[in-house]
Amino acid sequence: MVRASGATPAGSVWIGDDAAAVPAEAGTLLLATDAAVAGVHADLDLVGVDDLGWKALTATVSDLGAMGGRPRYALVTVCLPPGTDVDRLSAGVAAASARWGCPVVGGDVTSSDQLMVSVAALGVVDGPPVTRAGARPGDTLAVTGPLGASAAGLRLLRELRGCAAPGTVTPAAPVLMEAHRRPLARLAEGALARTAGATAMIDVSDGLALDLHRLADASGVGFRLERVPIAGGATAEDALGGGEDYELVVATPDPAGLAAVFAGAGLRPPLVIGVCTASAGERTLCGRPLGRLGWAHEVR
Amino acid sequence: MVRASGATPAGSVWIGDDAAAVPAEAGTLLLATDAAVAGVHADLDLVGVDDLGWKALTATVSDLGAMGGRPRYALVTVCLPPGTDVDRLSAGVAAASARWGCPVVGGDVTSSDQLMVSVAALGVVDGPPVTRAGARPGDTLAVTGPLGASAAGLRLLRELRGCAAPGTVTPAAPVLMEAHRRPLARLAEGALARTAGATAMIDVSDGLALDLHRLADASGVGFRLERVPIAGGATAEDALGGGEDYELVVATPDPAGLAAVFAGAGLRPPLVIGVCTASAGERTLCGRPLGRLGWAHEVR
Repeated sequence: MVRASGATPAGSVWIGDDAAAVPAEAGTLLLATDAAVAGVHADLDLVGVDDLGWKALTATVSDLGAMGGRPRYALVTVCLPPGTDVDRLSAGVAAASARWGCPVVGGDVTSSDQLMVSVAALGVVDGPPVTRAGARPGDTLAVTGPLGASAAGLRLLRELRGCAAPGTVTPAAPVLMEAHRRPLARLAEGALARTAGATAMIDVSDGLALDLHRLADASGVGFRLERVPIAGGATAEDALGGGEDYELVVATPDPAGLAAVFAGAGLRPPLVIGVCTASAGERTLCGRPLGRLGWAHEVR
Repeated sequence: MVRASGATPAGSVWIGDDAAAVPAEAGTLLLATDAAVAGVHADLDLVGVDDLGWKALTATVSDLGAMGGRPRYALVTVCLPPGTDVDRLSAGVAAASARWGCPVVGGDVTSSDQLMVSVAALGVVDGPPVTRAGARPGDTLAVTGPLGASAAGLRLLRELRGCAAPGTVTPAAPVLMEAHRRPLARLAEGALARTAGATAMIDVSDGLALDLHRLADASGVGFRLERVPIAGGATAEDALGGGEDYELVVATPDPAGLAAVFAGAGLRPPLVIGVCTASAGERTLCGRPLGRLGWAHEVR
């Protein structure tokens, strides 16, 4: 099931041995893992097993991007119930692997009652990574794109369930459903934000509000949000509490510098949402307290 | 749930950020992953969730040992049904992490219907790893210990099921049951075998016969086995087809040198079982064909 994407370089060992062997990497090594479980992270009545595979790999490399790193290699573990369309699952993993330049070099396949895909990835960063913990009072908070598309796409998929009259589908619908099925990792943005002096970053996997609280908790700061960019067709609730957008939240003392490096690379401009404050208890949106809305997969 | 074992070194990031960050490593990097699923890899009526956690981490570092490497860091993903004893599971993972010197630096926790623990580990090896593919005709085949203890221990656990009259338990029984509950990884043996010139290695995870065929397939050789060391209290079938012993099979042109380095390190002597042959179709034990007995978790 687990296939290496591309030819194995000389001196490396990919699929088929006890472990994969790859050359040493300069810089700091990053290790991340994410699991996608059918029925928890994906409703397979609404999305395909290929989408589940895509999401598992993309969520993992997104974690590397949120440290300012780039992915190098992935391991993919799949627990498969009988009848799973393994080829389709593999195709989704392979598509994400190719998209993010992160070859699958090993893995494990086992049987189970519930479909689960767990991806672990090794990444690298040329220098100190950008953690969640470095934001300082006065730093500007920005996001790499509007939020809520994935949650809105999921709602649309649920509403339509294969029986949509075409006239009920808004022009934004295909974009939103695609955002849910095939989220994108902001790897270029994360790497550039690091070189532009970002002090803290996190990817929006469980909703902007919850992930922003996590960043603020780790950094010991508060925040005052003045605006939240909402994806076309999404609601404010989608943008604040919907998960799996994978846009990055970036704290920086130099938002103009951040905008300049993004522009220089042809990336969408970062969208300023607010500022970090010295009072760690201050967590507001337009002057009102912002709770820990969001989507927690964690059991504890 | 996932706890780092030990204090985080300065400059590293362990649990709690998007990814773990660790210093670069010299030498070849090794990446391995293994999953343990309740009901597939462990019967939780017979063993504890701590044992499942131990096994998942130990099986993964065993894969690194089978390349001649040593473990450095682990990521642990757990998919938890409601009511799982998370503290006990964590304790098993932590015990294995401490035993094998492989701190858990990150992970993911999610809910599921079926308990699953997936461990990915980064290891290193100072030079070329020992793959499955390097055995040559004439190389001696040895194992690092007698086989079948885990399978025999599982059978005992099934027979006893908490209702054993003490008199029915043989003296070997506790050892065998422990071998099933808490298998050991032969890390020192793997690293020393590499420096002593081993040409190929594999760990016995799915049964000696099956894993030996895998080594022979990868190396393009045949084998003639003259003997199979059977753990006390185990049967020949346990030794040939039982999984999860995690002893290493070592191919070497210099068995005396292998024995000498093991003796020098105070390790149990390697046990010679046979020889590699030039005819890839020759796969015999005491002159009779040896089939691919063993325990395959793979769905395909």
